[in-house]
Amino acid sequence: MRKTLYLKFVLAYILFGIFGFIMVASVISNMDLDHEKQVQADALLTEATTIANTYAADLYNSEASIDSVYTQLGALSSYNNARILILNPSGRMVVDSAKELDPDVAVTVDGFDPADFSGSPYLEGTFYDTFDEDQICVLAPIASNYRTVGYVIMCYPMSLVVASAQQVLQISYVELLILLLLSVIILIFFTEIVYVPLRKITKATEQYAAGNMHYTFTVDSEDEMGYLAASLNYMAGEIAGKEDDQKKFIANVSHDFRSPLTS
Amino acid sequence: MRKTLYLKFVLAYILFGIFGFIMVASVISNMDLDHEKQVQADALLTEATTIANTYAADLYNSEASIDSVYTQLGALSSYNNARILILNPSGRMVVDSAKELDPDVAVTVDGFDPADFSGSPYLEGTFYDTFDEDQICVLAPIASNYRTVGYVIMCYPMSLVVASAQQVLQISYVELLILLLLSVIILIFFTEIVYVPLRKITKATEQYAAGNMHYTFTVDSEDEMGYLAASLNYMAGEIAGKEDDQKKFIANVSHDFRSPLTS
Repeated sequence: MRKTLYLKFVLAYILFGIFGFIMVASVISNMDLDHEKQVQADALLTEATTIANTYAADLYNSEASIDSVYTQLGALSSYNNARILILNPSGRMVVDSAKELDPDVAVTVDGFDPADFSGSPYLEGTFYDTFDEDQICVLAPIASNYRTVGYVIMCYPMSLVVASAQQVLQISYVELLILLLLSVIILIFFTEIVYVPLRKITKATEQYAAGNMHYTFTVDSEDEMGYLAASLNYMAGEIAGKEDDQKKFIANVSHDFRSPLTS
Repeated sequence: MRKTLYLKFVLAYILFGIFGFIMVASVISNMDLDHEKQVQADALLTEATTIANTYAADLYNSEASIDSVYTQLGALSSYNNARILILNPSGRMVVDSAKELDPDVAVTVDGFDPADFSGSPYLEGTFYDTFDEDQICVLAPIASNYRTVGYVIMCYPMSLVVASAQQVLQISYVELLILLLLSVIILIFFTEIVYVPLRKITKATEQYAAGNMHYTFTVDSEDEMGYLAASLNYMAGEIAGKEDDQKKFIANVSHDFRSPLTS
């Protein structure tokens, strides 16, 4: 006999652990990342809308100088690691929080189309190749006299979103670890209700197989294991008894043969 | 016999699920909340430091009017739901983003002590009873000519931190649910390697107990279960064989008695 039952059960555990890990590293990791993108996009959109309704509107209404807008947006963008752009509807850059633009040189974002933002609260990517690395970008229209005169674009590096998501993911891994430890409850139950009685029973069958039919044992559980142990005990007793009876019978018969019909 | 083995195993499952739920609702919930507080406090501190180094410093250096500072801080605080205070070292309020202060009426935060912020990156509470509900507050000193001339305090409602943490907590519950579903792997293993063979074995012992010693069955697993089944089969065969032998023996002996010593 190979005593592999416990090994098989432990294998089930290891499989559970591996699938659990794969699940956290894929499904939960994606959920954490999506959540983080959503949170960041919401914050950016609130800020972009505020900027569109204040500084940027002032700029288009000529109530603020481009210098003061630069100062304000510079402070804002350094605070939250976001880059703030103000674009005309044509795609021409009016303000870039990352660098002062030369008013005489037209910098245009080729292919800029506000409709790209209509389906989703944010766009992922390099914002029409404006950035070197991937970003989350949101758009807020600047209204003046009921017309859209420009757009505030706020972009936040995807690498920072991923870094935030990974911090949350660490908690998910801690949860996985604690749950794997907690699932030892099942292993303890298995050991107590299955494995310990089963070891007693197999030990007894080894004794019976060796011919020791007088071996007795008890399993004190009122379930299949207890029943099985009781049955085995009974059957061993039967075999032992039959062997004894047969010996006795043979002894009697032999005796009767030796001294027959003395009655 | 009570067939309770499976029930006991399912009980282990339910216990695992309950402990898992309690664990997520306590340990993981706290970790999510602490993480959210930390993230919010970091963001607030970065912003407060930026404000302290720009608008607030300008105010103390008389490079900006209190009105322009109000406008800027109002936009900032509405963007991120934070309330921004500028205090003198004595605790007198200079700017409150929530309401314009009357310069002639001194509003003082009683008990304000910057040292309270030295141990932790943020303080939880009502900020010396300034707020009605609990907040996370951070402090950034305003320096002018190498002296601390005031403090920027940014406070963010704890209720919003809790709301953010609960969104993350939902992912933790999804993870718990998926892991509980995944742990069915262990239940399947238990059913396949323990319960199915055990049912065959107990069914056989029921047959043997009813006297049907010729009942045979097979369990094709090379572990304790297979060994146990083989042993039981063998023992039943022994008993059946002994019964047959005894019948044959008695038949022979009876025959010999009826026609004795004809040889």
